Amino acid sequence: MSIRYLTAKVAQQIDEELMSTAGAFSLDQLMELAGLACAQALAKVYPRETHPRVLVCCGPGNQGGDGLVAARHLSQFGYRPTLFMPKPGEKNIYQRLQIQCTNMSISSLSSNPDETINELTHALNTSDVILDAIFGFSFAPPVRAPFDAVLPLLAGSGRPIVSVDIPSGWDVEKGKISFSVKGVKEGGEVEFAGLEPDVLVSLTAPKLGAMAFKERHFLGGRFVSRALENKYELNLPDYPGYEQVVELPQNGSHQKL
Amino acid sequence: MSIRYLTAKVAQQIDEELMSTAGAFSLDQLMELAGLACAQALAKVYPRETHPRVLVCCGPGNQGGDGLVAARHLSQFGYRPTLFMPKPGEKNIYQRLQIQCTNMSISSLSSNPDETINELTHALNTSDVILDAIFGFSFAPPVRAPFDAVLPLLAGSGRPIVSVDIPSGWDVEKGKISFSVKGVKEGGEVEFAGLEPDVLVSLTAPKLGAMAFKERHFLGGRFVSRALENKYELNLPDYPGYEQVVELPQNGSHQKL
Repeated sequence: MSIRYLTAKVAQQIDEELMSTAGAFSLDQLMELAGLACAQALAKVYPRETHPRVLVCCGPGNQGGDGLVAARHLSQFGYRPTLFMPKPGEKNIYQRLQIQCTNMSISSLSSNPDETINELTHALNTSDVILDAIFGFSFAPPVRAPFDAVLPLLAGSGRPIVSVDIPSGWDVEKGKISFSVKGVKEGGEVEFAGLEPDVLVSLTAPKLGAMAFKERHFLGGRFVSRALENKYELNLPDYPGYEQVVELPQNGSHQKL
Repeated sequence: MSIRYLTAKVAQQIDEELMSTAGAFSLDQLMELAGLACAQALAKVYPRETHPRVLVCCGPGNQGGDGLVAARHLSQFGYRPTLFMPKPGEKNIYQRLQIQCTNMSISSLSSNPDETINELTHALNTSDVILDAIFGFSFAPPVRAPFDAVLPLLAGSGRPIVSVDIPSGWDVEKGKISFSVKGVKEGGEVEFAGLEPDVLVSLTAPKLGAMAFKERHFLGGRFVSRALENKYELNLPDYPGYEQVVELPQNGSHQKL
């Protein structure tokens, strides 16, 4: 039995069930383990000795929260993360996670729209790897400002990208689809099809849109009970030892042997 | 500079600071990482292939909560944990953590005082290792019922013991001190000096009472910022890679080479 790829709706249902009275998990717990898994997956592929500077890009939702947790753990692992939150989340948990990062002396780029693009351009030149925690499984197109300008810059940076759950800009179910975005240059519109990450970290179970993903693919979110797994027929692989991530077999021909 | 061993008061201060407005951590986050560290330390010393059956003994306080988190992660790691909570905690978080364990199909011994000792005796015969999450750094003697009967049974079981923060029954600052407890036999009083664990997992930083501990000693709680570490002059060792625990050098002559 192969692993199940989830629709956005089923992913949402599982999340709700985990946090229901019956599931009893708090968002704090799930986000802590999800963010830790993202940090571990990045550390497995990009050691801190060769890739110390991580630009952690966070969206305004829960996936941005996973990114903040990951940034904190990366800092504990000896990386030098920098946060980029062009539109910081407004939830209390998001703000607490931001403070925890500040307490770890993790710096942030400005979220002032007038400075975002300049600061991002500079930060990309001085980063070794990007952690993309911008859009998660509840994302639906179109990509709005400021992300319509941000995503093409990340994509064009030439830096390796680790995406969380679904590469930002991809449709959660249909995968890579091109759409028009505001170009970086004045007045231009360009076709854009989302980021092209080198590594994907799916949380709980992979999403349908990731079926065509051909690069290194990890699964995190080691908190699903056997009962929940069976109910949703997830067919999750065994995680090794006490790790928080497991690597999935690669699809297609782009395998790095 | 060697690692600092904390008084109960300083340990309490650091805990409060982590969860203050300035520290911004929630108890859910800290307990999740602490419990995960305990599970990882146990897994390093007692592989699931040789020690699958773990009796997880939880006190009524926050350390019991760490034990519940550890039990859940041990279950995810492929162990078969059983919970023993002779006096379950009353806090909401404790109850949520219990439900999470139930959802993982982790069984519990009865907490009915009439059945506790019989069930425990039986469970000890069918356990490979004990996780002692009974008393933590806020414990102060004397040991009250039902723990005055429970601790000698654990100590006499011959099973390897992994203790969290401080071996249960030890004074947090003075270490191993003998005291009188109700014996298992009717009307008897016996001298008892606490558990003699094979492994200790100190959280955040070791406590003064653990200075004389001579067996394998791990540190967990990889959430302390450099600023907090410096403020309290903790002199923490570097954790390896993306691990949640680091082994401390052993004191004295009981080293297992």
